[in-house]
Amino acid sequence: MQHIICSDLEGVFVPEIWINVAEKTGIDELKLTTRDISDYTALMDKRLSILEAHGLTLADIRAVIAKIDPLPGALEFLDALRAEHQIIIVSDTFIEFAGPLMEKLKRPTLFCNCLKVDDSRRITGYELRQEDGKKKTARALQGLNYRVIAFGDSYNDIRMLQAADHAFLFRPPENVVREYPQIPATYDYDELMGHIRATVAEGHAN
Amino acid sequence: MQHIICSDLEGVFVPEIWINVAEKTGIDELKLTTRDISDYTALMDKRLSILEAHGLTLADIRAVIAKIDPLPGALEFLDALRAEHQIIIVSDTFIEFAGPLMEKLKRPTLFCNCLKVDDSRRITGYELRQEDGKKKTARALQGLNYRVIAFGDSYNDIRMLQAADHAFLFRPPENVVREYPQIPATYDYDELMGHIRATVAEGHAN
Repeated sequence: MQHIICSDLEGVFVPEIWINVAEKTGIDELKLTTRDISDYTALMDKRLSILEAHGLTLADIRAVIAKIDPLPGALEFLDALRAEHQIIIVSDTFIEFAGPLMEKLKRPTLFCNCLKVDDSRRITGYELRQEDGKKKTARALQGLNYRVIAFGDSYNDIRMLQAADHAFLFRPPENVVREYPQIPATYDYDELMGHIRATVAEGHAN
Repeated sequence: MQHIICSDLEGVFVPEIWINVAEKTGIDELKLTTRDISDYTALMDKRLSILEAHGLTLADIRAVIAKIDPLPGALEFLDALRAEHQIIIVSDTFIEFAGPLMEKLKRPTLFCNCLKVDDSRRITGYELRQEDGKKKTARALQGLNYRVIAFGDSYNDIRMLQAADHAFLFRPPENVVREYPQIPATYDYDELMGHIRATVAEGHAN
């Protein structure tokens, strides 16, 4: 059977986008995460109202994001991975934000959400493509007869990792490692690549 | 709703692989197509026995395929498409054959079949990932809440085109145009791109 890779974006290939936007714009409030406001809708509404209050358009935010670089070694790892396997990156971010970063990663396929933007390029809202999109992507690929190897760094990846045929955590926070000891944790790209290659080799041997 | 592109490979982005292998190796018998042997399994068995008879390994065939170039303008069209949309290429070819061509196309995601290769790199067989894989891919993407725009050139794409939300033929043979007059036929990349952009703009206006 053929394997396919299903991976997270932020924390795996690129740094956290909102935190970087906060740092690069100097707007500290944008550092709020689901740890501060647990309800995602409330958090996103807050973020969008902050952008609005500062008069920031989509073009402004994209210019900021264009200054963010992939994590060190991420592009080389991804290039090596794409030479051996097909990969779908699945993220909770918005396609309009991710664009400049995906270009730096040489445009791997990304499944994510999208923003609502008005004629003056003001961000007026957003659209989540579907509930539980990460897990559903893993399931859809299995429905296409792929054996799914998934990896991600945190809580929002867990359901995808649990649905996958093989799963790895990449640089997870300690509490995630403690809560999900059955998912092997990896901390650098070579280690993760070694796990992926071993998984595929074992699959072919069976 | 977000759109996603689901496209064919051979005849759309790259020339027909077997025909080119036949030409470049001088083995005329490899020009056999489903027009000559309508049963795909019988045709593939014949092709593999021809390779075997000529002592050609996977490495030999890949070296031949590495000399094939994408169709003129294909890379520019694909680059432009990938800057605007996510794309999955779905093909009946084998990943081991497509590899050198996908590299030239900058590694877009490809869903296809795979070969069975023994330790001496002899091709011993092949594995079709699933029946009706093109159509199932379009359906799976719709299940992930994407609106699917599909295009392809011939009979083996029809079920995918019929399953898609929007579909176009690209440089189809005349008989396909006659049989499926309801699917708009396009003949160059600019024309196809124009149709895709119009489809997406209309989708956003609704």
